[in-house]
Amino acid sequence: MGNRLPLSLFVLFGTLCVTGRTNAAPRASVRSGPTENTGTTPHLQEIFLGRCWGFQQLWQVSPEVNCTDLWDKFFGAFSYREPCDVMASSYDPFFQASTFETPVNKTMFWSGTNVLAHAYSDEGHRYRTLEDTLPGHILNGLQWCGSPRAPGFNDTVCPQCENRPFWPEASKFFAQRARGDVFVMLNGTRRDASGNPEDAFRTTSIFARVELPSLNKNAISTIHVWVIHDLDSDPPYSESCGKGSLSQLEQILSYDGFHVICQDDPPSLRHQQCVDAPYSPLCTSVTSKAPKKNTIYNSFLSVVIVSIVLNL
Amino acid sequence: MGNRLPLSLFVLFGTLCVTGRTNAAPRASVRSGPTENTGTTPHLQEIFLGRCWGFQQLWQVSPEVNCTDLWDKFFGAFSYREPCDVMASSYDPFFQASTFETPVNKTMFWSGTNVLAHAYSDEGHRYRTLEDTLPGHILNGLQWCGSPRAPGFNDTVCPQCENRPFWPEASKFFAQRARGDVFVMLNGTRRDASGNPEDAFRTTSIFARVELPSLNKNAISTIHVWVIHDLDSDPPYSESCGKGSLSQLEQILSYDGFHVICQDDPPSLRHQQCVDAPYSPLCTSVTSKAPKKNTIYNSFLSVVIVSIVLNL
Repeated sequence: MGNRLPLSLFVLFGTLCVTGRTNAAPRASVRSGPTENTGTTPHLQEIFLGRCWGFQQLWQVSPEVNCTDLWDKFFGAFSYREPCDVMASSYDPFFQASTFETPVNKTMFWSGTNVLAHAYSDEGHRYRTLEDTLPGHILNGLQWCGSPRAPGFNDTVCPQCENRPFWPEASKFFAQRARGDVFVMLNGTRRDASGNPEDAFRTTSIFARVELPSLNKNAISTIHVWVIHDLDSDPPYSESCGKGSLSQLEQILSYDGFHVICQDDPPSLRHQQCVDAPYSPLCTSVTSKAPKKNTIYNSFLSVVIVSIVLNL
Repeated sequence: MGNRLPLSLFVLFGTLCVTGRTNAAPRASVRSGPTENTGTTPHLQEIFLGRCWGFQQLWQVSPEVNCTDLWDKFFGAFSYREPCDVMASSYDPFFQASTFETPVNKTMFWSGTNVLAHAYSDEGHRYRTLEDTLPGHILNGLQWCGSPRAPGFNDTVCPQCENRPFWPEASKFFAQRARGDVFVMLNGTRRDASGNPEDAFRTTSIFARVELPSLNKNAISTIHVWVIHDLDSDPPYSESCGKGSLSQLEQILSYDGFHVICQDDPPSLRHQQCVDAPYSPLCTSVTSKAPKKNTIYNSFLSVVIVSIVLNL
């Protein structure tokens, strides 16, 4: 009993990646579509309808969207077709019926920062990622693919298709409706599957290929680029604002007439990372721009002590 | 462009309560049941089934629970009855079919710390609150009440009942199955609706009345009590470990033979609070026990400078 520290709770994670967590619990992937060796998610229709009605209940969407009609539009886009034979425009009736404007200054894009971005957006309470909107919330982490035979979808296996249009199309509709200040969270210590450094701004990403070109320039005030780095990265930064691919991004955005503000590791996001690694050295200096009373005090104290000693 | 600070993003919240957020977006309440002037949640059955199948998909529950059967057990407990005429035991078939043991060392209780507890538990990835289990997840934030007439529930109004057994019964089943180290997050700066201080450990809370008495003493290693305080509380602590109602809690637990560790504001939880208030003075000293390299360096530098000056 007493104020002892439960050290067992605060074992410092060796690696706290911005792209993934070290905890073992399974987590639904985001923006997933058909993958090899898994078929359409079991109970897809029931999960779709439950998420659709539940989202509207949570956010009090008005006027109400008819989820049965939305399911028909979604299912109609891919069912009874060859799994790789779906055009992006097939999903448009679904997106037109389910995509609304995000509240001004709330839109957040992400690339390479999946887990951190969603921990921070907090299901749309702080910011809104695509996965915090109605269509994104409904389909997040689910798998589906069509089949020419009844019941119109394949529940045992989905092939890898060159053309997987759902998430790019969802991203297009999402980006087209962004207003005010928008935010993009990128990974300054991004690594590929083999551990080799990758660009923070990847020109092949959905953000680069779909979201950026879909922004309505007249509706956007400023694009805030947040560059996040792993707490244990060594050297600390692989890429930071104004360097490497981020310099390229800033040039593209400026050329397109956007006002851009780039920031490395905003304190709020550092705190979000520090929740899982509170004793990391970087977590002791999260808000380095705040007044350092202790430092000033200690410096003054040192002067006084030395003066006294030397005057003895 | 450049590394300028987007100050607009980091406006310090005047109040960051552990019990609620200042952002305006609606958030489903937790542990809610029937309340006056609102009837059963529209599309209750579809939301129930969607959440039930979705949860199992997310956590890969094995063997699979039949959600249709679970709905029958839930609906059968209250449907076609007077709204206030439901016994706690009516829900037991539902809880028996849906409640599993929480992984060892993961169970987290909370009282007066709703929003912070769930931000920290992260949908069960860090810890498991009742709302991160299958029955809690399915019913969280929903409303329902019976009616003797078809369709068996009232969709326009639910009365305030003296006896609202669902969440206490859910809590009992949840607590009975806790194993290893368990955690409880309490509010050291708790206030009632009028702003008057309340006890951090309320003897009338579900935690005190239901969860504590339901713990299996032989399965519990240690009870970790985390006492959280608002960042802007003045005086900083209303109640802290070893004082007031927390002293009473520690006595009760010790008398019952539990090993208890109480801690005020664990650094991980401070960081979780600091995400929304990164420039709060308390957020600059979250991990005060870590080495302060800058301070040591500055002190040394001061000594050197003064020595040089005095030797000139």
